Amino acid sequence: MDFPFDLISDEEYERQRTLHEPLTQAVRELIDAGIRTDLDEAGVREARAAIEAVTERLRSVQRSQTSTLRHADTGRPLAWANPAVGVRNAIAPPMDIKHEDTGRCWAEFELGVAYEGPPGLVHGGICALVLDHILGEAASDGLTKPLFTGTITLRYLRGTPLGRLRAEAFVERSEGIKTYARGYLGDTDGWSVEADGVFIRPAWARES
Amino acid sequence: MDFPFDLISDEEYERQRTLHEPLTQAVRELIDAGIRTDLDEAGVREARAAIEAVTERLRSVQRSQTSTLRHADTGRPLAWANPAVGVRNAIAPPMDIKHEDTGRCWAEFELGVAYEGPPGLVHGGICALVLDHILGEAASDGLTKPLFTGTITLRYLRGTPLGRLRAEAFVERSEGIKTYARGYLGDTDGWSVEADGVFIRPAWARES
Repeated sequence: MDFPFDLISDEEYERQRTLHEPLTQAVRELIDAGIRTDLDEAGVREARAAIEAVTERLRSVQRSQTSTLRHADTGRPLAWANPAVGVRNAIAPPMDIKHEDTGRCWAEFELGVAYEGPPGLVHGGICALVLDHILGEAASDGLTKPLFTGTITLRYLRGTPLGRLRAEAFVERSEGIKTYARGYLGDTDGWSVEADGVFIRPAWARES
Repeated sequence: MDFPFDLISDEEYERQRTLHEPLTQAVRELIDAGIRTDLDEAGVREARAAIEAVTERLRSVQRSQTSTLRHADTGRPLAWANPAVGVRNAIAPPMDIKHEDTGRCWAEFELGVAYEGPPGLVHGGICALVLDHILGEAASDGLTKPLFTGTITLRYLRGTPLGRLRAEAFVERSEGIKTYARGYLGDTDGWSVEADGVFIRPAWARES
């Protein structure tokens, strides 16, 4: 047993990515503009009506495909909708995660005002989102193995400034159904948050 | 020393909330529609151009006000832009956090496909975002005290289904500069994630 999935060719993947990445990026800019705007009431109402019209148009044709798509070549899931890495999810920064041969993962990405907690700093919960995701990627070998987070501990060493950031993660060890991963988030001044996670292979995936 | 802030009257708060909440909600719907759409290439390009036009209009008048606004009556910050609770941030579900006289906080909110990790389940990092935020609210008495997350540990008891959820948090004890908070996330079947956090009063706030 596994999650349902369909394979997608490299060509179709690139076609969809090229089409949807700029749309998602436009929505990210809109999120930012919505936070910062001081437009008058009539202007805000017009903006809202225009957005609702776009939403209606996008919804006029919906994906029937709701199962996970996997690369025909690599077996890696596409995670279009994922709130950390999804190229079709405007909530995602998105993290573009690189997998090294050693199993270590890393990503460099930009977090703007939409991810702010204390003034000028990334919200602690967004640091947790980013680290939970990259530890999970390392533990599951790029999401190719079914694994759930069991426990994760985050240590905040200092505030994480908004702007360009880097996250890394790697597997420390595996014991039976448990995989122990560790990771870091920070900027050019060094790490600002450390994370340790225990990831667990679910019961239904232990037979195979 | 404290973060810079300006006071806002109840009336002005309500005016801004009434104006911006529907705009932000329209952007949330757009995020969802962007994930689900299967519109053809011409349609997606038109949607993108329409979104870019709205963004440009919203950016034509930007807030000069970038410091935190606080309620004139309660002293609570408005956190318009916060990615967990911000009524002007489309990334936020948003959580509408209720503070009880006992100091306990709770929120009920809906998480849809934009917050999905494994199929049908909330991304573990989104569970972490929600819990980090509500523990912080409990520890800082509704964000009226300056506090930073020191450490947070999340225990995932089972997958958290997408849909209607409830989160709660309360302070267990305080010792010197440290406040220990605990919280839960779950649905009508019970809690799915537990969290323990240690929150620390920053050095610059210890003199006052």
